Amino acid sequence: MDIKALQAVLQDFADARGWDKFHGPKNLAMALSVEASELLEIFQWLSDDAASRIADDEVSKQHVAEELADVAIYLLRLADKVGVDLEASIQAKIIKNGEKYPAELVYGSAKKYTEY
Amino acid sequence: MDIKALQAVLQDFADARGWDKFHGPKNLAMALSVEASELLEIFQWLSDDAASRIADDEVSKQHVAEELADVAIYLLRLADKVGVDLEASIQAKIIKNGEKYPAELVYGSAKKYTEY
Amino acid sequence: MDIKALQAVLQDFADARGWDKFHGPKNLAMALSVEASELLEIFQWLSDDAASRIADDEVSKQHVAEELADVAIYLLRLADKVGVDLEASIQAKIIKNGEKYPAELVYGSAKKYTEY
Amino acid sequence: MDIKALQAVLQDFADARGWDKFHGPKNLAMALSVEASELLEIFQWLSDDAASRIADDEVSKQHVAEELADVAIYLLRLADKVGVDLEASIQAKIIKNGEKYPAELVYGSAKKYTEY
Repeated sequence: MDIKALQAVLQDFADARGWDKFHGPKNLAMALSVEASELLEIFQWLSDDAASRIADDEVSKQHVAEELADVAIYLLRLADKVGVDLEASIQAKIIKNGEKYPAELVYGSAKKYTEY
Repeated sequence: MDIKALQAVLQDFADARGWDKFHGPKNLAMALSVEASELLEIFQWLSDDAASRIADDEVSKQHVAEELADVAIYLLRLADKVGVDLEASIQAKIIKNGEKYPAELVYGSAKKYTEY
Repeated sequence: MDIKALQAVLQDFADARGWDKFHGPKNLAMALSVEASELLEIFQWLSDDAASRIADDEVSKQHVAEELADVAIYLLRLADKVGVDLEASIQAKIIKNGEKYPAELVYGSAKKYTEY
Repeated sequence: MDIKALQAVLQDFADARGWDKFHGPKNLAMALSVEASELLEIFQWLSDDAASRIADDEVSKQHVAEELADVAIYLLRLADKVGVDLEASIQAKIIKNGEKYPAELVYGSAKKYTEY
């Protein structure tokens, strides 16, 4: 995925619709959170088992794919607007998480690092 | 960004910590939503002006970058777990949004497509 | 619970701290959502069984109680700021939900009313 | 508002529909978060000015009232399921917040208590 190319497409999309004025970082952070909840809503009453089989049903899988895409779109857009290099940030965060959660210390536990 | 490579790194990360059992789609959707809210929290009391200047302050920018990365990590992980091709989904969604929101119809308006 | 009395206490609390200027409906809706996610975070990696036993542990129960209170505080505050009578709205919504989801039709199913 | 009476009505509502099995604390915390986001969505593209005038429009005010009620319903239900006395928790939290944010120290600032 070429992030910068996608961000340029999304910028053009907003410009063509006169939407850039709505796309300040605060509004985009709200929109990202709202889309993450629409994704969550799909799973809200499902058992863990049913949730893990959701992609077996094509209609449900398509629904999940669209909500994942909505989250991704606002994520890319917000990163662009605040000038954050998303890929570098992901890689830095994985390294940082590795230090916060050493494998041998946390194995099999879901506790937060502040509890160690 | 090579999405599949990143997803493989995240799978190894979870496996090394015995965390895969926690990473069902329902839990991952919750985690994604929780991280999106941590990002939102940064902006919650800021004026639109202050929010749009957030990257001027290095500490704040770094904080935003880390929360963006957390959202991205759970997004990549959830897409992987449900077998959704994230890049194809984003591209399909941009096309669909273009059809739902024709530029000439919606110019300068933030109304939802259901209101047209 | 005397809602109006609590809302007056919360208004005084904000006034005493010069916080009323931050408490527009948009910011309060963000804060409410952020607090709801902090509550959600408590349950995010728990099994359904462990979640249903959370109140057996006094520290966890206290944590849940505080996050529930945070959600309630912003809910009361937002209702006050937009002039909505919360109690009347709850009662009206229960009646409306009863019409959307007739007991005999939906028994034992978690489908959304739009699916019937 | 008689909280216990409302909680009993909501319990009967769930029982009559065979929904109690879906209403574990984890699912209710998800539902609460999803409803808080539906409320947030109303404000997402509004300016602070437009948001503060939302109740001037009867249709919008009714929409806000219904989403506030949905949040309240899941809040009451979750508090009931974990055995938390919501009113006592709110009062305890207001006192605790008063200690964390002394009026003379924080006047006019929206900083988090951890920053003082």
